[in-house]
Amino acid sequence: MERRVTTSRMRVRYKDTDQMGIAHHANHIVWFEIGRTDLCREAAVSYREIESRGYLLVVTEVGCRYRTPFHYDDEVVLLTRIGSLSRRSIRFEYELRGPAEVTHGTGFSSHLWLDRETRRPVVAPEDLLKSFESWRAQ
Amino acid sequence: MERRVTTSRMRVRYKDTDQMGIAHHANHIVWFEIGRTDLCREAAVSYREIESRGYLLVVTEVGCRYRTPFHYDDEVVLLTRIGSLSRRSIRFEYELRGPAEVTHGTGFSSHLWLDRETRRPVVAPEDLLKSFESWRAQ
Amino acid sequence: MERRVTTSRMRVRYKDTDQMGIAHHANHIVWFEIGRTDLCREAAVSYREIESRGYLLVVTEVGCRYRTPFHYDDEVVLLTRIGSLSRRSIRFEYELRGPAEVTHGTGFSSHLWLDRETRRPVVAPEDLLKSFESWRAQ
Amino acid sequence: MERRVTTSRMRVRYKDTDQMGIAHHANHIVWFEIGRTDLCREAAVSYREIESRGYLLVVTEVGCRYRTPFHYDDEVVLLTRIGSLSRRSIRFEYELRGPAEVTHGTGFSSHLWLDRETRRPVVAPEDLLKSFESWRAQ
Repeated sequence: MERRVTTSRMRVRYKDTDQMGIAHHANHIVWFEIGRTDLCREAAVSYREIESRGYLLVVTEVGCRYRTPFHYDDEVVLLTRIGSLSRRSIRFEYELRGPAEVTHGTGFSSHLWLDRETRRPVVAPEDLLKSFESWRAQ
Repeated sequence: MERRVTTSRMRVRYKDTDQMGIAHHANHIVWFEIGRTDLCREAAVSYREIESRGYLLVVTEVGCRYRTPFHYDDEVVLLTRIGSLSRRSIRFEYELRGPAEVTHGTGFSSHLWLDRETRRPVVAPEDLLKSFESWRAQ
Repeated sequence: MERRVTTSRMRVRYKDTDQMGIAHHANHIVWFEIGRTDLCREAAVSYREIESRGYLLVVTEVGCRYRTPFHYDDEVVLLTRIGSLSRRSIRFEYELRGPAEVTHGTGFSSHLWLDRETRRPVVAPEDLLKSFESWRAQ
Repeated sequence: MERRVTTSRMRVRYKDTDQMGIAHHANHIVWFEIGRTDLCREAAVSYREIESRGYLLVVTEVGCRYRTPFHYDDEVVLLTRIGSLSRRSIRFEYELRGPAEVTHGTGFSSHLWLDRETRRPVVAPEDLLKSFESWRAQ
């Protein structure tokens, strides 16, 4: 993938492990959220500001493929990209890597812009859309 | 303990386990929340209604002692009581039991009544206070 | 879908909500796990026994589409089916319904049978495979 | 408090919020775990190594007082100290601060050393005990 990427780092918490001795597969979905939060902050504005301006980026679909498990205290390196972008929706793509640059998993999430009050789909604010587009093109 | 009690039942989910092979200790705090939700519903009104009437029961302190761990798929029996009750605060007490009636852990949580808009401490609504008091006295 | 289905019921916990006022989308992945646990118990043996017999059913892929959000204290009705079944893998399909039989979301998870010690892919035990097959065919 | 302290930093994740619009109170218990993991690494060895050497530091009690809530995307500064230390047990104390050095909450956790195989209480390994003691005294 040649597109621009945001890198996030976190550590597998003890709470994230399960009795298989690996990070439970639901954590990956939570990590993805950290990745797109970091991408929003880097590319446009913090997601906090998106909400304070009256918008929500609601999840419509999520998917994850698991290759190699993470273990307690592993450093997780998460690469987040903008997969596709329209006036009403955005799709993020994720790659989870371990310490040795190995791909542990990949995933995506699709989102719709909603008006925070009415909870109805809306067109994304023009300036944010431009920010995402120009960041992605760099 | 002679006071009235609400009984809640749940099962240890795989997600709740950690690599020690037991239910992670933070789950007990989440289970307590289920217990007081059930007690509210039984004694007065659902907590959902408490919020829709403009109040919040915010947590000011929580504590838990752990005796025996729970394992995956165990049935958790949670007993919830009202420990103390005032016009502005309420304290719940919890006992976690396993299948053989053994006490696995005990705990408590203290709460303040807040106005949902201002987030300021308030006196509890009179009717709810009476409901909690009469339920507890039974 | 005409295939046999297992029904699980749970309630949205306060801990499951986020500041959008809905059940956070990662919970659905955890609910799915409850659904396939119930299906295993109904169709063959408890997942606990699967592990104690030396096997793991490890997750290789998961996906979820979100239509309508769940709110605090909602009853979630989860329908779980066996999507496909081979000697080495199994795929579960999920449908999440709300109180009014409305579909709130759908999803799937794919799994490989592993040897618990070596963590290597193995063929599923013959008796469990037969149990899943006959349950599914009913 | 004059005793030596380990500082950990994390950000409130969206998943950590609840419909009150604040970080749910169960997260504090998970954050504490991050604090003592960091302290172990700094003072002696990683907790991962403690387990690989055949020991578990199991939680016997936990408590938290909540003063000021954290909100989404807030930076949480966690100060962790060794409260008390014996040959068989250890108690950690925690203070949660917000961006403006304000104390948002305080807490503690008590732990017993267990043999990982037998799950029986044991005396802590001498070298680790010394490391914790000398770190604490600095």
